[in-house]
Amino acid sequence: MSDSPQANIGVVGMAVMGSNLARNLASREGNTVAIFNRSYEKTQTVLDEHPEAGFVPASNYEEFAASLQKPRAAIIMVQAGRGTDAVIDELVKVFEPGDIIVDGGNALFTDTIRREKAVRETGINFVGAGISGGEEGALNGPSIMPGGSDESWVTLGPILESIAAVAEGEPCVTHVGHDGAGHFVKMIHNGIEYVDMQLIGEAYDLIRRGTGKSPAEIADIFAEWNTGELESYLIEITAEVLRQNDAETGKPLVDVILDAAGAKGTGAWTVQTALDLGIPVSGIAEAVFARSLSSKPAQRAGASSLPGPSTTVSVDDEAAFIEDVRRALYASKIIAYSQGFDAIVAGAEQYGWDIKKGDIAKIWRAGCIIRAQFLNRISDAYEEDSSLVALVLAPYFRDAVEGAQEAWRRVVVHAVQAGIPTPAFSSSLAYYDGIRADRLPAALIQGQRDFFGAHTYKRIDKDGTFHTLWSGDRSEISAVDTH
Amino acid sequence: MSDSPQANIGVVGMAVMGSNLARNLASREGNTVAIFNRSYEKTQTVLDEHPEAGFVPASNYEEFAASLQKPRAAIIMVQAGRGTDAVIDELVKVFEPGDIIVDGGNALFTDTIRREKAVRETGINFVGAGISGGEEGALNGPSIMPGGSDESWVTLGPILESIAAVAEGEPCVTHVGHDGAGHFVKMIHNGIEYVDMQLIGEAYDLIRRGTGKSPAEIADIFAEWNTGELESYLIEITAEVLRQNDAETGKPLVDVILDAAGAKGTGAWTVQTALDLGIPVSGIAEAVFARSLSSKPAQRAGASSLPGPSTTVSVDDEAAFIEDVRRALYASKIIAYSQGFDAIVAGAEQYGWDIKKGDIAKIWRAGCIIRAQFLNRISDAYEEDSSLVALVLAPYFRDAVEGAQEAWRRVVVHAVQAGIPTPAFSSSLAYYDGIRADRLPAALIQGQRDFFGAHTYKRIDKDGTFHTLWSGDRSEISAVDTH
Repeated sequence: MSDSPQANIGVVGMAVMGSNLARNLASREGNTVAIFNRSYEKTQTVLDEHPEAGFVPASNYEEFAASLQKPRAAIIMVQAGRGTDAVIDELVKVFEPGDIIVDGGNALFTDTIRREKAVRETGINFVGAGISGGEEGALNGPSIMPGGSDESWVTLGPILESIAAVAEGEPCVTHVGHDGAGHFVKMIHNGIEYVDMQLIGEAYDLIRRGTGKSPAEIADIFAEWNTGELESYLIEITAEVLRQNDAETGKPLVDVILDAAGAKGTGAWTVQTALDLGIPVSGIAEAVFARSLSSKPAQRAGASSLPGPSTTVSVDDEAAFIEDVRRALYASKIIAYSQGFDAIVAGAEQYGWDIKKGDIAKIWRAGCIIRAQFLNRISDAYEEDSSLVALVLAPYFRDAVEGAQEAWRRVVVHAVQAGIPTPAFSSSLAYYDGIRADRLPAALIQGQRDFFGAHTYKRIDKDGTFHTLWSGDRSEISAVDTH
Repeated sequence: MSDSPQANIGVVGMAVMGSNLARNLASREGNTVAIFNRSYEKTQTVLDEHPEAGFVPASNYEEFAASLQKPRAAIIMVQAGRGTDAVIDELVKVFEPGDIIVDGGNALFTDTIRREKAVRETGINFVGAGISGGEEGALNGPSIMPGGSDESWVTLGPILESIAAVAEGEPCVTHVGHDGAGHFVKMIHNGIEYVDMQLIGEAYDLIRRGTGKSPAEIADIFAEWNTGELESYLIEITAEVLRQNDAETGKPLVDVILDAAGAKGTGAWTVQTALDLGIPVSGIAEAVFARSLSSKPAQRAGASSLPGPSTTVSVDDEAAFIEDVRRALYASKIIAYSQGFDAIVAGAEQYGWDIKKGDIAKIWRAGCIIRAQFLNRISDAYEEDSSLVALVLAPYFRDAVEGAQEAWRRVVVHAVQAGIPTPAFSSSLAYYDGIRADRLPAALIQGQRDFFGAHTYKRIDKDGTFHTLWSGDRSEISAVDTH
């Protein structure tokens, strides 16, 4: 250790994500990176394995703080939860007002709001930053979604811009908004990721069962799709996974993998949050539920003898069917993003964040799991009309869905007739038909609610709130709104 | 006030639900009811309007406590939330160990767990009791779902049995389980109520749009359905609502009610809780989201020009179509209850409650909003096999779904082709096809997760957890489970 502080940024937590992010930082011009881990052993391993990085190691928090130039900035990369709180407590002791603590883990945004508020009282800045892209992204360029104060962004901005993924010359990082805004947006990103993956899964299942093609053949289809409007990282890796053979059995790997999908919780958080915000994210919910259904072996074993359709549905024109599936996938994906951005808009309003929707789409173009060409269209849509009430209503997406909807219907009809589960395709189509409906049976539901609970209703032809005296003479009275 | 305590039960909160419940209690042999309200004015009104009840009024908490025989028992009927906590704080001051405080409001079960724990430390019993049936039920016989200690049930049981609805000679109340079990089960009840109403709404919409029948004609169909396996309170009142004409315009009331459905939050709670428990309650989620979608006027106005199907789908045989819709409704309803009971099972396991599933079905047979003949079948199913892994797998329900599934598919196909939104019908069918699938595309999702996040996977042919070195030589290694 030298006497004067050498590092302009520090990283706490030397597990894979933390060490990769530290290496990424160190590889960029102008950065010197201080590193710290609870057990020094891991720090030593990282030092030994990456001498080129010029890391400044610390064996305790005092040393770590002393090695950082002011205002100090440190990124915490530890398991989300109590571990994060413990590190924050230690950093607060050795940092000074104006310094910056960044949580780069997958924290729940309400925890980030709580932590930001507590840390702010010490004069230190706290920034919750969503970081997407996994281990590879951390090393080579993630998509970064930082929240926190404007003050912290002055110091942090250039550093994060130096390590972020680059899309069409622009770094995939922007100051999302204050306090928990970054982790909120990262959560929505993950929710969208869940639908994206479920939709791809359904498309694969439809093609496999509908045409009998092998996983390798379907890999070719996905690779082909990846050259068009569906171009995205998830489509690309789907082709890779489907092409993979199991060395042991010689079978396609996808056929030896147990079909029970795991989850880390951010999908469920997204749905829970959207429910609080009153935003229908039906696609994300169906995707999360499809995973939990898949992980119920006892129920699935018991249900495997439940009957399917009595008649076989065959696909006459394979090429046309596959093209239909591609269009259905694209239309459903548009609905998924439309719902996800609705949640972002509602969250921004609820929590007072000034979130630029177009910028969010831009920073998702590279580095993160849902990265796709498609996001340019979203960014364009919000640039053309920042007050767009739903993404699906932007001219480009409206046209895309209009062009796809007949195919989308054919695909869902095929699935229903063939007994193939397509919860996300079906749900997004039902949402589409719901949002465009002139009248919804919600009117009947309001009537039922008024009948059994005197919950009142509004009328289409005049202002006010009304109640029918159902157990009386059934006349209508003006009522106090109890919605 | 006499000197010796006269009342065996008290009610706090004299709004409609509270005064109705107090009147119900007073009308039963052997009960003398103490009443209290924050403002005495309301208490006086109740006294004046119901002299026959023989209420023992109190103008403060000390008087209220003094009027109750020991162990004292009081039911709080105030707006859920902070109001409840305020009343509990006051009652704890004037009650003694062994006394019983009952919260009869719609509390979130985790709040009830918290309150029960806090009150228990004073030696006083706290019982969260779900009460369903609205104002009418409170007055004439609700379905009651009490949690809390065994000790409290000794005193409370006979009192609650005296006022509960009666189904086939049995009172619709049972000691559900400890602490928050009662409010948990009430929450699931409400979640199921959401799907039940949504499914009825979709059935109505399909028939209306498919056949052009008037609401009054469809009322007759629902009345007819109410004589068969769909017999239930919600089907009954649907006929009533559809038959109602608006006095002002002469139109069917359902056509002048604004089609924006309100919600009080218990449906969202159910979905949020089920997400925590890992239980797919897709039908409830779709029902909650359908309501929130209906309440987005700006989006709906913008989306009203989105195109529907280019060809018209006509119903050739109206009677056959209506019968198909009836069967689809029944099958979807079975799925909704199957998912709801899965959540009860998971909640009981998570929170250590000894919930008798058959008894829950029994106490829902009368008094509550989802009351139905159908619940006898659920009770039978759990009596025959208490370890049933899913309700839909009980012989009766398996047969019912098997008999309905072709009709169910035809109805969803019609909806999709005609552009009619049926999120709950579609979702429940997708769930059915999902749970009975031999293989799900969850295997591909596991492959994707392993590719981008090294999340690992399990295999169908051997134990252990595995990872493919996707960025390396693509060989498979044993791995630590990071699901």
